[in-house]
Amino acid sequence: MGGVDEIAAALYTVIARRRDVRREFVDRPIDPAALGRILAAAHHAPSVGMSQPWDFIVVRDRATRERFRDHVLEERALFMGSLEGDRRAVFERLRIEGILEAQLGIVVTYDPYRGGGATKVLGRHAIDEVGLYSVCLAIENLWLAATAEGVGVGWVSFFREAFVADLLGIPATLRPVAWLALGPVDRFASVPDLERAGWQARRPLLPFVHAERYDGEPPGEDVLVLPEAFG
Amino acid sequence: MGGVDEIAAALYTVIARRRDVRREFVDRPIDPAALGRILAAAHHAPSVGMSQPWDFIVVRDRATRERFRDHVLEERALFMGSLEGDRRAVFERLRIEGILEAQLGIVVTYDPYRGGGATKVLGRHAIDEVGLYSVCLAIENLWLAATAEGVGVGWVSFFREAFVADLLGIPATLRPVAWLALGPVDRFASVPDLERAGWQARRPLLPFVHAERYDGEPPGEDVLVLPEAFG
Repeated sequence: MGGVDEIAAALYTVIARRRDVRREFVDRPIDPAALGRILAAAHHAPSVGMSQPWDFIVVRDRATRERFRDHVLEERALFMGSLEGDRRAVFERLRIEGILEAQLGIVVTYDPYRGGGATKVLGRHAIDEVGLYSVCLAIENLWLAATAEGVGVGWVSFFREAFVADLLGIPATLRPVAWLALGPVDRFASVPDLERAGWQARRPLLPFVHAERYDGEPPGEDVLVLPEAFG
Repeated sequence: MGGVDEIAAALYTVIARRRDVRREFVDRPIDPAALGRILAAAHHAPSVGMSQPWDFIVVRDRATRERFRDHVLEERALFMGSLEGDRRAVFERLRIEGILEAQLGIVVTYDPYRGGGATKVLGRHAIDEVGLYSVCLAIENLWLAATAEGVGVGWVSFFREAFVADLLGIPATLRPVAWLALGPVDRFASVPDLERAGWQARRPLLPFVHAERYDGEPPGEDVLVLPEAFG
């Protein structure tokens, strides 16, 4: 993109390259130093009141991942049962996980009591969930870092939190937020799976930008000029 | 960092440079093309079932920002009233917002019904809040892009959602997730404000990484090698 320095151009390249990976994992271990950088990137995310309320459980054990995969496939069947007609036919062809094809899972948890809990953490007294939001910011850092390292990430969300808590011994006070399947890839798909399969296409941005109020039109060109292409 | 290509190095530079900005805003407009790239980066975030459930309200109007700032200062006083002794003394010196010093606010909202709601969006049937998580991923993309563009971001979370909804005409079905104050900066602080002020220091990462289960020790060096420095 014009007018952008090398640092910003590299960031936009990574953001555009990132995909939710299910099919592209190759059978090659993750470089331990790359995994270290990926987790360090996550840990450098913003967090409310500097609470850093996350933990990362690195799951390599095959039996554990098989148990999780079986649970996910049950949930997949449950969701499919709620669909009808064309939607069901499109969904049936979709892969929603690559848990065993990936090298490992990283389960990211939220600890609401890190830093003293909602009444003590600076910035959580009015909106308690800001702590949970922080964990998501860390996940996005992790995802971008993995992408830059040639490591695919697939966020699996077809699971019940209680199942994962039981599987991994996560205390009841914590919350499992995401199971991320990680493994090297040789390439990232150029188009998201859900778009290619006809499930849901990406939307243009402009209708979702409003000046001053929610019912406002997009800002004028003195304020905002969207790029014609991104990344 | 050794062993990292230019793209990854640039990403890590941005992640390390990023700060929650309150004091460093300078009085200079945001380049409209840069603002466009920043919002495009947010819009390229992952989202559950490709639901892209976010809107961005760009608030420049001074009177609106003054009303929001007054509300935030009331909430600040409320939180301060809950603190005692040293904690109160440290907090009293902290700035928690730069709403008027920034050039504009971007309010990011969550629309739970985008793409059909929890029962229709692929990936939300088991954990409804994954939609909300998607909005946070977009916010982190926005924050990193702004950082790369020399634009500071301050996430203000001392507010009641109902106040912001009323102020900006946000429908009751949507949820305001964040008020982000944006404006150019000449530099980013090298140390987070909360650490410099003695409120909360950054934690080391290793105690929060576990092999296989939540009570597991960190993985061995055949799996994970953390970087000595980051970015």
